[in-house]
Amino acid sequence: MSAQKRAGPSTAAVSRKRVNYTPQDVNEVLAKVAELTKDIKNEPEVALTLSDLALPHAYCEVVDKDANAVMDEIEATMLRMANTIMQGQGFEFNVPSRTKTNQMYVPQLDRIVLKDAMGRRPFSSTQTCRKAAITARILSLVHQLCIKRIHVTKRDLFYTDVKLFEDQSQSDTILDDLSCMLGCTRSSLHVVASEKGVVVGRLTFVEDGDLINCSKMGVGGKAIPPNIDKVADFQSDALFILLVEKDAAFMRLAEDRFYNTYPCIIITAKGQPDVATRLFLRKLRSHLKIPVLALVDSDPYGLKILSVYMKGSMNMSYDSSNLTTPDIKWLGVRPSDLDRFNIPDQCRLPMTDEDVRTGKKMLEEEWIQSNPEWVPELELMIRKKEKAEIQALSSFGFQYLTEEYLPRKLAAGDWC
Amino acid sequence: MSAQKRAGPSTAAVSRKRVNYTPQDVNEVLAKVAELTKDIKNEPEVALTLSDLALPHAYCEVVDKDANAVMDEIEATMLRMANTIMQGQGFEFNVPSRTKTNQMYVPQLDRIVLKDAMGRRPFSSTQTCRKAAITARILSLVHQLCIKRIHVTKRDLFYTDVKLFEDQSQSDTILDDLSCMLGCTRSSLHVVASEKGVVVGRLTFVEDGDLINCSKMGVGGKAIPPNIDKVADFQSDALFILLVEKDAAFMRLAEDRFYNTYPCIIITAKGQPDVATRLFLRKLRSHLKIPVLALVDSDPYGLKILSVYMKGSMNMSYDSSNLTTPDIKWLGVRPSDLDRFNIPDQCRLPMTDEDVRTGKKMLEEEWIQSNPEWVPELELMIRKKEKAEIQALSSFGFQYLTEEYLPRKLAAGDWC
Repeated sequence: MSAQKRAGPSTAAVSRKRVNYTPQDVNEVLAKVAELTKDIKNEPEVALTLSDLALPHAYCEVVDKDANAVMDEIEATMLRMANTIMQGQGFEFNVPSRTKTNQMYVPQLDRIVLKDAMGRRPFSSTQTCRKAAITARILSLVHQLCIKRIHVTKRDLFYTDVKLFEDQSQSDTILDDLSCMLGCTRSSLHVVASEKGVVVGRLTFVEDGDLINCSKMGVGGKAIPPNIDKVADFQSDALFILLVEKDAAFMRLAEDRFYNTYPCIIITAKGQPDVATRLFLRKLRSHLKIPVLALVDSDPYGLKILSVYMKGSMNMSYDSSNLTTPDIKWLGVRPSDLDRFNIPDQCRLPMTDEDVRTGKKMLEEEWIQSNPEWVPELELMIRKKEKAEIQALSSFGFQYLTEEYLPRKLAAGDWC
Repeated sequence: MSAQKRAGPSTAAVSRKRVNYTPQDVNEVLAKVAELTKDIKNEPEVALTLSDLALPHAYCEVVDKDANAVMDEIEATMLRMANTIMQGQGFEFNVPSRTKTNQMYVPQLDRIVLKDAMGRRPFSSTQTCRKAAITARILSLVHQLCIKRIHVTKRDLFYTDVKLFEDQSQSDTILDDLSCMLGCTRSSLHVVASEKGVVVGRLTFVEDGDLINCSKMGVGGKAIPPNIDKVADFQSDALFILLVEKDAAFMRLAEDRFYNTYPCIIITAKGQPDVATRLFLRKLRSHLKIPVLALVDSDPYGLKILSVYMKGSMNMSYDSSNLTTPDIKWLGVRPSDLDRFNIPDQCRLPMTDEDVRTGKKMLEEEWIQSNPEWVPELELMIRKKEKAEIQALSSFGFQYLTEEYLPRKLAAGDWC
């Protein structure tokens, strides 16, 4: 089919120099990516942290700790508690506040962090007595998990004492409090989210003692594990990481073994990114020091997904330093691609009023403004009131994505 | 914690003979499973098919065909078409009807099948002219996919001709029609669903040329591929397949490497089963001839999930012979387990009115009645108006599932 249809994007609209995507040209196609990689490799070894900034007040951040360190923290907390009881001051916890007013976007770090406001949680007050009891109970459960070196889900944790917790939102909230209190990530607490992500491509790593070779994972790929602390020893000759919003595009890339021609690692969380995939991406990026290029739908929801990977969510801002990958490049599908690649009108979808509202709100957000090239893209989207899915590229042929769109974008360094 | 809590299920309520779950006892624990396996291995090599039954009328069923066979079918269809046009009879398709009245449960086969009613789809009628055009277009697209030997999603297919298809439900419906028309499964048409399932345990197979060893897949497991025709050469020393409803339970089993102690293959579709996982399970079961034991929530939704694995869904009844695994044993969590294992009251959830209605409706269904031991279980659930999740077992300790509940159930042959 569609010699006629294909005519669209291969015309002058895209690039003056017509690129032939034969295998010999791979190095040429990837020259711009290589430049990006060079910049990253030249980054200072130690990234900027909160303590490097002379900020007016203190911040609360968490770090990955191993099971022994978490147990030490828990035991120290309980000892302090015992001391205050002995001194007649009663039994109370000091818990960092996680309310919106205690959160802040730090432009130097390009992510949301938690400020230093604390809340008291005395057992002697009728208002906080239940919360204090739940806090103590979860401390003991986490201590147990650390001893056994096993991981459970939030749901498992809830079921260990339904009588006390009453509903899961209560145990979940206090688990997040605990994370801030002990200064360690939620996965250090051995409580993990369920997995959703998949990875394929030029990567090997060790997972719980097993050597995983992601270039030998067929077309289905390897499920990204829920417990990132069991993942170690990343090895890769990839030049970039391709972060894909949806599994349909992932499938196309995996089946065409895109990574064999263009050395890369392909990751998807199948929609809204889960914690496990975010942790995995962050760890991958910081170990391999290669660029992350994102392929998302051209709509506000696609940008929202990028923002979760890059800036984190408000809900887990205390953990933003471990969950976020700040320097993701927006490869496509960008609003300006629609005309440049002549996406047919019938493959573009009208934005709903809600979409437009979401987009306008985003325009005002600091993280969009901190990427100056994103603003005109988002403005274009809102002005034209048009969105498009990655799949819209199939209108030029099923393999247009892997055989033309991506090589063309990579060769042109067409990301922002 | 909980020497006191654990006391519950280890008392007489469960079994008179107290079983110690030390490694030496694995053979003893699995004796009942081995019996089940023996029965399966003794099954006649060729399973009963529709043609073996002397049924009053013909049925429409589909089989897996390779790309060449599908192309042959498409070309034959188009030749017939050309002939009828030459003979002045015009251009029309004959398409098997997929309405509810043309569907039927066949107790001998224990699944839903499609009867032989056909519908005409002439191009000359204003009522069917669009449908005929879409049918012809999708035939040509599928032919292309078969030539290229690539797989796409329904969404990709839709985007190749949005102008004609208008919305995805139209191309989806006609794709299913085509499957019946050509007598081949939807995956033979090279149009696949997105993947959701994960597998781990004592299994190796070849996926698109790569050797996959599922016992070396860390704790995250291997993603089940969307294109089952790329999966071949199953090898396993597992004694059974453990089919798990939810990923939290899957994670527990994977992290505890349950399959190392009790040789098995563990699969989950993370909720509602997708086509890829159903195809994978079916293929696994028919190649390895080992029993499938299911671990689902004790609620009508858990049974519904079992029914989709076992009997298929109405929507894809024409494909039921390839998608279903009829002889799954319901291992747990069964309504009778709640009292026998002394699940604490606060871990049991009250059934909603909707739950009770769903349960009552199920009781009348043939597939429940064809499993006589399931009826009293479902009746008990409805009578007590109580449901429970697999996670409720965590109330006895995080590893109660893998260290006590499952070994105990397996040893007692406690499935139905």
